Amino acid sequence: MGQKRKGNVVGSKVVKVVADPVGTGPRITMAHGAGGSIMGSFIKATVLENLKACAIQGKRPEVPLEALDDAGVMDGIVLTTDSYVVKPLFFPGGDIGHLAVSGTINDISVMGAEPVALSTALIIEEGMPLDDIARVVQGMGRASKQAGVPIITGDTKVVERGALDQMFVNTAGIGRDWDVLRKDIEIVRAHRPHEGRWLTDASVRPGDAIIVSGTLGDHGIALLSFREGYGFESTLQSDARPMNDLVAAALKVGGVAAMKDPTRGGLANTLNEWSEKSGVGIEIDEDTVPLKEAVTSACEMLGMDPLTIGNEGKVVFSVVPEQAEDILKAIRRNEAGKDAAIIGKALPRTELKGVVLRTVVGGRRIVDPPAGDPVPRIC
Amino acid sequence: MGQKRKGNVVGSKVVKVVADPVGTGPRITMAHGAGGSIMGSFIKATVLENLKACAIQGKRPEVPLEALDDAGVMDGIVLTTDSYVVKPLFFPGGDIGHLAVSGTINDISVMGAEPVALSTALIIEEGMPLDDIARVVQGMGRASKQAGVPIITGDTKVVERGALDQMFVNTAGIGRDWDVLRKDIEIVRAHRPHEGRWLTDASVRPGDAIIVSGTLGDHGIALLSFREGYGFESTLQSDARPMNDLVAAALKVGGVAAMKDPTRGGLANTLNEWSEKSGVGIEIDEDTVPLKEAVTSACEMLGMDPLTIGNEGKVVFSVVPEQAEDILKAIRRNEAGKDAAIIGKALPRTELKGVVLRTVVGGRRIVDPPAGDPVPRIC
Repeated sequence: MGQKRKGNVVGSKVVKVVADPVGTGPRITMAHGAGGSIMGSFIKATVLENLKACAIQGKRPEVPLEALDDAGVMDGIVLTTDSYVVKPLFFPGGDIGHLAVSGTINDISVMGAEPVALSTALIIEEGMPLDDIARVVQGMGRASKQAGVPIITGDTKVVERGALDQMFVNTAGIGRDWDVLRKDIEIVRAHRPHEGRWLTDASVRPGDAIIVSGTLGDHGIALLSFREGYGFESTLQSDARPMNDLVAAALKVGGVAAMKDPTRGGLANTLNEWSEKSGVGIEIDEDTVPLKEAVTSACEMLGMDPLTIGNEGKVVFSVVPEQAEDILKAIRRNEAGKDAAIIGKALPRTELKGVVLRTVVGGRRIVDPPAGDPVPRIC
Repeated sequence: MGQKRKGNVVGSKVVKVVADPVGTGPRITMAHGAGGSIMGSFIKATVLENLKACAIQGKRPEVPLEALDDAGVMDGIVLTTDSYVVKPLFFPGGDIGHLAVSGTINDISVMGAEPVALSTALIIEEGMPLDDIARVVQGMGRASKQAGVPIITGDTKVVERGALDQMFVNTAGIGRDWDVLRKDIEIVRAHRPHEGRWLTDASVRPGDAIIVSGTLGDHGIALLSFREGYGFESTLQSDARPMNDLVAAALKVGGVAAMKDPTRGGLANTLNEWSEKSGVGIEIDEDTVPLKEAVTSACEMLGMDPLTIGNEGKVVFSVVPEQAEDILKAIRRNEAGKDAAIIGKALPRTELKGVVLRTVVGGRRIVDPPAGDPVPRIC
């Protein structure tokens, strides 16, 4: 209305137009880090391709980088890393420190490995209140104690004002052979061939039942509703939490073939990764997917698919069908698993390619991996 | 000259004056992350204090976080992490990727552990050219191959323009029992009592000879000279390099009691950490400290002490004196160790507190740990 336009208005967002300082080639976009299909192609082309030439003879990881799994494994040691750039740093139900430690515990656990120890690396913008840094560290300590896994090493860097938006946190962690995993694999093998000792994205087999440990989308929508300018309020809390206790309970029953924490890209991304890497189709029933009313209504309002929203305290299981009911019961006995449900099954590729949702009204909808992330910087 | 002043001009640098958005308590400064004495106090007060309440019963790391050593150790597995915020990303003799992988290899090696595998986590600003990202990844691959240690897992996050200055890299790594360490410790124990199986900052004993593997300050001064506005040019190259081969050669001789890579805070910080944690005094001779002419003259011009400048491809050794000459010979046989020298010795606290430099003209100067970092963002 006669106001001076700022920048190059695209849609409803103001985008800064920045002069091209160097080069004329393609540049990275938010979608390249969003956990979806664009990110997958980018990682393959820019990271894996450029490391190929440097492969080291005679050093063969049990689970290599190229598997793009939740963790890598070398000589029986599981190693995982994640950087957290969540915004804001403090949100309903958690903070960046608690989130980072929880996420790393979960990435180790879903490999079927017992988390042993953690590292934490803080990068902080000059001028951040020391009290806020202390709160983040307290959040880390809380999650570490909850999981029973100590933080044994760390690093702190401070950069000048403007070089970073407040604070980023990296956590890495190590895991090893878990006694509950050995029993689990024995039971899986009693029902069918199972190669390897870790539960990777390639371990799902036709017939497996798919279980989720609770309601989906809580973390992403809680963060979104807390951010300014989204015009809706909610009492939703982030679900971020270390899940090693719940995972151990499921493994104790036995018959778990694969697990994954459905973070960036949500359930849609998790199931598509399984489908691709395990060579199976996956069919889920819409009316069995646990969703909170607040998530459903927020997603309707914003035109988002709850299956693509990131979670932090949830685990998706692929289990041998004979064990599914017992595993479900064990998960539900955990407070964090009370809403767990069997939501579908894996099928042979000859019957189904990719991931399909059977809708409440009886239709079938293809569930594609999201191209980008509908909610950026939620982890 | 009649120009409008921008911001609050302090000295020759323009400092942005930013309104206080939250809180009134103390805030973090660059010195808190500079590897010196201010950083030490900050880590103890803000990190260790806040994690104390969350100590986990029955989980006792072999080398815990509180040791503030180059790595932590739990159940025989060595874990280390570092975030790299070096500016610029590409500099004479290296790049942020090659630097990060080398630094992590070195942090594991100086514990006396064999590096087994690495993780890498990239945080990238939206708009960064994909070609530059590829170059960073190639640098990582080069260092990984040079060290013979594979990168087995990773993470990539992209944040919106302005939320980050181009790119930060985190690398974490794991190590384990090294056959060469067992022989080394046997020889150390033949000369004196030695507790524990790892080479920590607390392992230096009176009488130990102090060896540096080469010239000091090359990395920091190379970076500084390459930055705009410093008004001097130099042909200096960064010394960043994986040092596990050189470390293995020294351990094979036997008699190495402690090692450290003198990064942030330089040799001055390394020796003060040893002095404090091992409870010894350390005396070094100025005329034996290897320095390149280019580093000496740059430091004179800028009023900096070369002992406080960060290095990346150097190792400081504390060794039993009977083995010192043989260890020195072994180090010098490595291309990266050709300028190695014995520069001093450890003394009982009763004779000397702290760290002292015997100057060329026969004086004695106390070497304090630097308060902050004379050259920020060099790693």
